[in-house]
Amino acid sequence: MEQSTCIPHFLLYRGCVAAALEEDLEHGDITTELTISRAERGRSVIIAKEETVVAGTFAAAEAFRLTDPGVHIDVVSGEGGLVQANDCIMKIEGRLAAMLQAERVALNFLQRMCGVAALTRRFVEEISGQGCRLVDTRKTTPGMRLLQKYAVRAGGGCNHRYGLSDGILIKDNHIAACGSVSEAVARARAGAPHLMKIQVEVTDVRELEEAVAAGADALLLDNMDVHTLAENVNHARKLKPDIVLEASGGIRLENVLSVARTGVDIISVGGLTHSAPAADLSLKITGRS
Amino acid sequence: MEQSTCIPHFLLYRGCVAAALEEDLEHGDITTELTISRAERGRSVIIAKEETVVAGTFAAAEAFRLTDPGVHIDVVSGEGGLVQANDCIMKIEGRLAAMLQAERVALNFLQRMCGVAALTRRFVEEISGQGCRLVDTRKTTPGMRLLQKYAVRAGGGCNHRYGLSDGILIKDNHIAACGSVSEAVARARAGAPHLMKIQVEVTDVRELEEAVAAGADALLLDNMDVHTLAENVNHARKLKPDIVLEASGGIRLENVLSVARTGVDIISVGGLTHSAPAADLSLKITGRS
Amino acid sequence: MEQSTCIPHFLLYRGCVAAALEEDLEHGDITTELTISRAERGRSVIIAKEETVVAGTFAAAEAFRLTDPGVHIDVVSGEGGLVQANDCIMKIEGRLAAMLQAERVALNFLQRMCGVAALTRRFVEEISGQGCRLVDTRKTTPGMRLLQKYAVRAGGGCNHRYGLSDGILIKDNHIAACGSVSEAVARARAGAPHLMKIQVEVTDVRELEEAVAAGADALLLDNMDVHTLAENVNHARKLKPDIVLEASGGIRLENVLSVARTGVDIISVGGLTHSAPAADLSLKITGRS
Amino acid sequence: MEQSTCIPHFLLYRGCVAAALEEDLEHGDITTELTISRAERGRSVIIAKEETVVAGTFAAAEAFRLTDPGVHIDVVSGEGGLVQANDCIMKIEGRLAAMLQAERVALNFLQRMCGVAALTRRFVEEISGQGCRLVDTRKTTPGMRLLQKYAVRAGGGCNHRYGLSDGILIKDNHIAACGSVSEAVARARAGAPHLMKIQVEVTDVRELEEAVAAGADALLLDNMDVHTLAENVNHARKLKPDIVLEASGGIRLENVLSVARTGVDIISVGGLTHSAPAADLSLKITGRS
Amino acid sequence: MEQSTCIPHFLLYRGCVAAALEEDLEHGDITTELTISRAERGRSVIIAKEETVVAGTFAAAEAFRLTDPGVHIDVVSGEGGLVQANDCIMKIEGRLAAMLQAERVALNFLQRMCGVAALTRRFVEEISGQGCRLVDTRKTTPGMRLLQKYAVRAGGGCNHRYGLSDGILIKDNHIAACGSVSEAVARARAGAPHLMKIQVEVTDVRELEEAVAAGADALLLDNMDVHTLAENVNHARKLKPDIVLEASGGIRLENVLSVARTGVDIISVGGLTHSAPAADLSLKITGRS
Amino acid sequence: MEQSTCIPHFLLYRGCVAAALEEDLEHGDITTELTISRAERGRSVIIAKEETVVAGTFAAAEAFRLTDPGVHIDVVSGEGGLVQANDCIMKIEGRLAAMLQAERVALNFLQRMCGVAALTRRFVEEISGQGCRLVDTRKTTPGMRLLQKYAVRAGGGCNHRYGLSDGILIKDNHIAACGSVSEAVARARAGAPHLMKIQVEVTDVRELEEAVAAGADALLLDNMDVHTLAENVNHARKLKPDIVLEASGGIRLENVLSVARTGVDIISVGGLTHSAPAADLSLKITGRS
Repeated sequence: MEQSTCIPHFLLYRGCVAAALEEDLEHGDITTELTISRAERGRSVIIAKEETVVAGTFAAAEAFRLTDPGVHIDVVSGEGGLVQANDCIMKIEGRLAAMLQAERVALNFLQRMCGVAALTRRFVEEISGQGCRLVDTRKTTPGMRLLQKYAVRAGGGCNHRYGLSDGILIKDNHIAACGSVSEAVARARAGAPHLMKIQVEVTDVRELEEAVAAGADALLLDNMDVHTLAENVNHARKLKPDIVLEASGGIRLENVLSVARTGVDIISVGGLTHSAPAADLSLKITGRS
Repeated sequence: MEQSTCIPHFLLYRGCVAAALEEDLEHGDITTELTISRAERGRSVIIAKEETVVAGTFAAAEAFRLTDPGVHIDVVSGEGGLVQANDCIMKIEGRLAAMLQAERVALNFLQRMCGVAALTRRFVEEISGQGCRLVDTRKTTPGMRLLQKYAVRAGGGCNHRYGLSDGILIKDNHIAACGSVSEAVARARAGAPHLMKIQVEVTDVRELEEAVAAGADALLLDNMDVHTLAENVNHARKLKPDIVLEASGGIRLENVLSVARTGVDIISVGGLTHSAPAADLSLKITGRS
Repeated sequence: MEQSTCIPHFLLYRGCVAAALEEDLEHGDITTELTISRAERGRSVIIAKEETVVAGTFAAAEAFRLTDPGVHIDVVSGEGGLVQANDCIMKIEGRLAAMLQAERVALNFLQRMCGVAALTRRFVEEISGQGCRLVDTRKTTPGMRLLQKYAVRAGGGCNHRYGLSDGILIKDNHIAACGSVSEAVARARAGAPHLMKIQVEVTDVRELEEAVAAGADALLLDNMDVHTLAENVNHARKLKPDIVLEASGGIRLENVLSVARTGVDIISVGGLTHSAPAADLSLKITGRS
Repeated sequence: MEQSTCIPHFLLYRGCVAAALEEDLEHGDITTELTISRAERGRSVIIAKEETVVAGTFAAAEAFRLTDPGVHIDVVSGEGGLVQANDCIMKIEGRLAAMLQAERVALNFLQRMCGVAALTRRFVEEISGQGCRLVDTRKTTPGMRLLQKYAVRAGGGCNHRYGLSDGILIKDNHIAACGSVSEAVARARAGAPHLMKIQVEVTDVRELEEAVAAGADALLLDNMDVHTLAENVNHARKLKPDIVLEASGGIRLENVLSVARTGVDIISVGGLTHSAPAADLSLKITGRS
Repeated sequence: MEQSTCIPHFLLYRGCVAAALEEDLEHGDITTELTISRAERGRSVIIAKEETVVAGTFAAAEAFRLTDPGVHIDVVSGEGGLVQANDCIMKIEGRLAAMLQAERVALNFLQRMCGVAALTRRFVEEISGQGCRLVDTRKTTPGMRLLQKYAVRAGGGCNHRYGLSDGILIKDNHIAACGSVSEAVARARAGAPHLMKIQVEVTDVRELEEAVAAGADALLLDNMDVHTLAENVNHARKLKPDIVLEASGGIRLENVLSVARTGVDIISVGGLTHSAPAADLSLKITGRS
Repeated sequence: MEQSTCIPHFLLYRGCVAAALEEDLEHGDITTELTISRAERGRSVIIAKEETVVAGTFAAAEAFRLTDPGVHIDVVSGEGGLVQANDCIMKIEGRLAAMLQAERVALNFLQRMCGVAALTRRFVEEISGQGCRLVDTRKTTPGMRLLQKYAVRAGGGCNHRYGLSDGILIKDNHIAACGSVSEAVARARAGAPHLMKIQVEVTDVRELEEAVAAGADALLLDNMDVHTLAENVNHARKLKPDIVLEASGGIRLENVLSVARTGVDIISVGGLTHSAPAADLSLKITGRS
C-alpha cells in the first residue's frame, strides 16, 4: 500500500474529463469529420519527450474511453514511475477519429499532472533522508484540485488539507478577528470535530508561545528565514515535544534542504501546483488496425 | 475597441467560479466558522508582489460576490495593465468571513490569469514591430480555456482557434488518413463552412507545394529551424502571396524574434497556457468597517 | 466521406435525449406501470407514413437504449436516404414497457429531424446543378441546434455558422454602432482569428463597394429582389472575383432557382429549421419475443 | 382568472432559456466583441411582420435579462393577444452588445411560441360555439414541452396530459399486453391514484363497449372518419352519458368543425406543436440611449 | 401485476444515488485508501436486525454498482417482502474497497425505504378488509419523494398525488382567495385537464354541500373526529353516491381502524414519509474472494 | 460565537432547496394557477404545534425567496431556540400564489430539521454536566447531510466527521483487510494528512491495547454494555491519558446518562439523523396585503 499509487475514485474525476472534452469539442471536430471516416481504426502511443514522472494515465484513458467506449488502452509506465525522453507511457488502439478528438484533452491532463509530479519529485529528492514531509497547498488550479493533489502524491509528496472543511488552520486574519491567538485557539477547540487537529500560523516567538499554551496541535511557521525558523523550531519543541511544525513561504529547490535541516516536520510549497511547467509529451499514430 | 480589454461574457465564466468555490469550500469553512462572526465587516486589498500584467479581476470579483452578494469591489488596475510589486490591483469591502472564504479561489484565478498575461506580454514585446501575431494553442488547462485565452489577449496576444469546432486545421494524422495532402484539402474544401479558412500543417517543401496547389488558405510550419522556416516562408509567398503562414514548435523567448524575422504572420506558443508560472499576489485585510 | 452522413459525436446529443426522456417520463409512466409487466419483451418497427428523408435514427436509438440498455436496434434506412410511405426506418427488440416509455421521445426527435431533412432536400433539388450551396441559419429551435443543423446536412444542405463564436458576420446593427462599414470591417480584421473569414451584410451598392474595399471576404445580400440581387452579384464579382456571395431573405421553394441563377455561392433559408413540418412516422409493435 | 394568461413559473423555464443562450453564444460573440463597445446603450423593438398571437414574451425577456441584468423591458402586447403586421410586441432598453447577443435566442423562443398560439387560435375559432375543447398532444419538441403547451393555452386551446405521469391513457399496445380492454382497465383501476380518470383508446364499437363496461372515464376515438365517429359518440353517450369523448387523428383546419359537430368533448391535434410554422418577427434597433 | 412491486425506472433514481455517493465520498475515502488495496475482492451480506419490509434494494444495488461497475449483486428478499431479524436481504461480491465506499450510502437508502414500507404495512394491516386505501402525502423528505412514495407502495399503501402538477386539490387558502367553494371549484373545472378529478378540502357540512353542488369529484375531510367524520361521510354519500372521500389529520395506528369504519375511501397519513423510523440493517463482510 | 448558530453558507444549501421545489412543482401548480391570481398578495405565519427546537428557517426562507424574489421574511424564533406549541417561528409576506407553491417544501425542510434538533436537545439535556459531547453519524438522509448535521448543532450536539474524506476511522473491515490493528494503524499513520487524528474501532481489550500501542489518537468503543464500556475506558485512560474515547451502538435516551458516566468523551447516536420524527408545524395565511 503506497499512498502515491492510490489513484482517485473514478466517480471523482470522470465528470471533470467529460467537461474538458466538451470544452474542446464544442459542437464537433470539423476537421476530423471532414477528413477521416468514423470506421477507420488505428494505434497510437503517448511518448515522453523529456524526463518526467508519470501521473494521470487514468484521466487520459478516460478521455479516450469517453469518445470511443470500445477503445483498448495499455498503460506501459506505472503511475509515479520515472520515465526518460522517448519512453512510451501508454498505448491506445481504437477508432482513429475518436482518438484524435480525445488527443488534446488527454494530453492536457497528462502533461499537467506529470509536470506536478516531476517537480514534486525534485523537491522530495532534495530533502530525502531528512525525516520531513513535502506537502502541497490550496493554491491549485480551479477545478483541478483532486488531480493536482493526486499528482503531488504520485511525485512522492503528501497533501495538506484538501479544502476549507477538512482541517483547521488558524491564520493571521482569524487571529485578528478574535483579538488574540489564545482566543482563536479556544474557540476552535470548543467546536472542532474530535478527529481534527488545530494548526495555528505564527510569525514570531510570542505568538508561538501563546499558541502552544492555548493547546495548538500544530504550528505553521510562515515566511521565516532559515536561522529564525531553526530557533522557533527548537523553542517549540522544548515547549511541546510532539507538536507538528510546518514551514512555508519562499521555499525553492535551492533552499529546501536547509529548511528541512531546521527540524520541521512539514514543508509546504505552493509552487508544486501553481507553477509547475507541463511535461513535454506527444501522441503519435503508429498504424492502422 | 481593443481586443485585449473585451472580457468574456459573465454567463460564460460564472459557473466555473462557482464550481471552484464549491471545490474549496466542500461542506464549509470550519476554521472561519469557529473563529469569525458572520456579521463582522472589513476591507482588504489584493496586492502584486512582483511585476505582472493584470488579467482576471472580473473572475476574482465574481468569487467575492458569490460568497457575499453585498460585497463592494473596486478594481484599481485595469485589465491588461502592467503593475509593479506592491501595486494594488483591487479593493474589497464586505463581510469578513465571506471574504476569507473566497480569498483562495479569487487568488487562484487571478494569479494564473496574470501569469499567462505576463508571459504573453514578454513574448509580444520581443516581436514588437515585426508585423506578426503571437497566438496561443489548445494546450490549455482543462476547464480554464476561456479564461486562459482571454488572459493571452490581456497580455497583447491573439487567439488561435478556440476548439475543434471553430477552425479547420489539417494535421499529419488527417493527411495520413486521407492518403495525401491534396485529398485531405479537397475533402475539407468540399464540406467547410463558407466562413472558415483551411489551414494545413506541412513539414517540408513538397507538402507545402501540394497544400498550396490544393487551395489551402493558411499553412502551419511546424518544428522547423529558423533557416528552413525562412526558406519555406519565401517559397510559400511566391506561390500564393496572401497565404497565411504560422510557425510553431520549440519557440521560446530567446528565439521568438528570429522566428518573427522569417516573415511569418503568426507565431504560436503552447507554453503561454501550459507552463506560465502563476503571478505572486496576496490579499491583505486592511481594517474593519 | 460525405458531409451528410457524418453524424454528431454521441457525447454531444446524449444529454439532450436524456433530458427529453425526463421531460416526458416525469416521475414515471403510470399507465404502462399498471398494465405491462417489466419482464415482457417484444419487437416493433418505425414506419414512414409519407415520403421523407431519414435523419436522426441515432437519437431515436439513444432514447430506446436509455430506457433499456439491453435493447437491440436495427437501422434499416440509412441516414440521408429517401424513404416512401410504408417503408420501415428502424426495428427495435427489447423490453416492451421500456420501448413504450421511449416511443414518444424517439419519435419526437426523429419526426422533426426527418422533417428538416426532407424540406432541405426539396430546396437542394430545386437548385441542383446551379453550383451554389443551400445553407441554414441560427433560427433553430432552442436546444436542438446540433440536431437540426445535422438534419440539414442529411438533406443535402450545408451549415452556416453554428453560433456566435465560429464565424464573423457583421450586420446592420454592428455597422451602425461603428459608424460605417469601413470602420466595422477594420475592427473585425484587426481582431479576427486568422482562420476566420469576415462576412458583411449589405443592402445596396454603396455598402457593397465599401465592404469590398475594406477587405470583406464574403457578403450577405439581404432581402433583395432577384433583379437587384443579380446586379449586385455581378458588381461584386467585378470588384473581387473570389468574394463569397450569399443571398438571404424571402427565399421559398418557388423562387429559389431564380435566386440561384443570379450566381450567388450560398443561399440561406431560415425556414429549414424554424418552420419545417414534422414527418409523419409511427411506431408499431409487431410481436412478442 | 384566464387559463391562457397564467404563464409558467419562472423556476420552470429560466434554465431552458439559459441553455439556449449558451448554445448560441458558445465561447463568445466574436463579431459583437470586435465591433461594439460594452458600454454602449440603445433601444430596440420586436415587431410582428404578419398577423400572429403573442406568446412567450416572458421567455424572450428572460434572454435579454440573462445577458444584461440591468435591461429594461416593456411588453406592449399582452400574452394571448392578436397582433397585426407592424405591431410592436415588446420594447427593450439596455446595453446594445448584450441585446444583440440575446436577440436570436429571444426571437427563437418567441417566434415558435407565437406560431403555436396562432395556429391554435385558428383551430379554436373554427370550432367556436361547438362546446368542445381543442387540446394538444405529447408530440412536442424535446425540451420545449412546457413552453409549447403554454403557447397552446395562449392561443385559446387546452392541454392534454403533460407527460406519462399525470394521466392514464391506455393505448392499443397496453391492451395487447393485457390481453383485453377489460383486463387493462381493471389493472389501471386497481392502481390508479384516486384523482386520475382513466382514458382508453378504442378503434371500434366492440372495444368501446368493453371499455365502458370496464369503467373507463374517458375514451379516445382514434382515426375514425366523421361518420363513424358520430356513430361511436352516440353509442357511447347512450351507454354512459357523462363519459368524456376525445377525437384524434387526421384532424385539420378543413375538417375540424365537422369533427366538433359529432358531439365529442375534446379534439386533439398533434400538429399544434409538431408542425406549426414560426411566426415572422424581427428585432429593430431604434436608437442609442 | 402488483402496484407494490413495480419499481421506479432507473433513469429516475440513479442521479439521486450518485449524488448521495458524492456527498459521502467528498474527495475520497481516506481511511480505505490508506488501508485496503484496490484489487482486493470480497463478499458481504446485508442483514435485517429487526422485522421489516424490504424496499429499495435496487437503490442500494445502484450504489454498489456506481463504485464498482463489476460488482455482482444477489437480491435475496424480494421488494415488498416481510423479513425477520437475521434474514439476509442481499449479497454483494466485488472489490472490497469499493464495497466499503458504497456501504453507508446503500444502507442509508435501504434503511429509510424499509422503514417507510414497514410502517405503511402496519397501517395497512390495521385496516385490512375495510375496503379503503391508505395513501401518503407530499410531506416527503426533500429529494426522496420518488423513493419514499415507492416505499409506501412496497408496504401495501397507495400514493396520493406526486406533486403540484398531477392532481387538483383545492384547499382552504385557495377557497379563501376565490371567495367561496363554489367559485373555486368553478374555476378549477373550467381549466382542469380532462383526465383529472377535482378534490376539495372541506371542514364542515356547509362546505361539503357547496363542494358537491359545485361538482367536486372528491372531498378531503380534514381533522374531523371520528363521529363527525362518519356523519359527513353519510351526508356526502347521499348527495353524490360515487364521490371519493378521503380522511386526513391526526390519524395514528391506534385510531386508523375506526377512521376506516366511517366508510371513507382513502385515508392519508403524513407520518408514513415524515416520521417513519429507519429500519435496523447492517452490512457484514463474509469473506475474501 | 456559538457552534450551534453558525448556519451553513447559502452556496451550500440553495441548490438543494431549488431541487426540492422542482420535485414538488413538477411542471406547475395546477390548482393554484387555476384559482389564485398571480398578483394577489398576503401574509402568513409558520407556527409550532408542539414543543420543538428551531432549525432550518434559512432553508425555509430560501424556498419562499426562490418562488417569489420579492418576498419579505421575518424570522421570529432564532435558530437553536426552544419554542412551545402555538409559538410563531417565522412570518412571510408576499405573493400569495408563490407562497402556497413554496409552502410544502419550506415545511418539509423545517419540520425535519426541527425534529433533528429537538431530539438532539433531549439527548444533550440528559448528559448535561457530564463533560462529554453528543455527536451524530454518517447515517443521514441522502442529500440532506449538511442540513441534518447543522440541525444536530442547532440542538446542542456536535458533528462527527462529515464524510469519508475528513476523518480517519479504521473499522473492523479495514483491520481485517490489513491483518491486524497494528498494521492498519501503521498504514494510516504513514499516509494521514498531518491535521487529522486517527480513530480505531475496537471491540475488546486486546484490540484496545493494540490500537493504543500502534499510536491511535482516538478509539471507538462499539456496542459494549455499560459495565464493559467503563472497564475499557479506565484501561485506555491508564495506557494513554489524553486519548479520545467514543461510545456508540444501542444508545437511547434511557441509557445515555449511564453511558456518559463511564467517562467517555464522545457519544454518537445514529438515530439523531436516521429516525428523528418530524416536528409538527403548520403555515397559516393570516391576511391579504
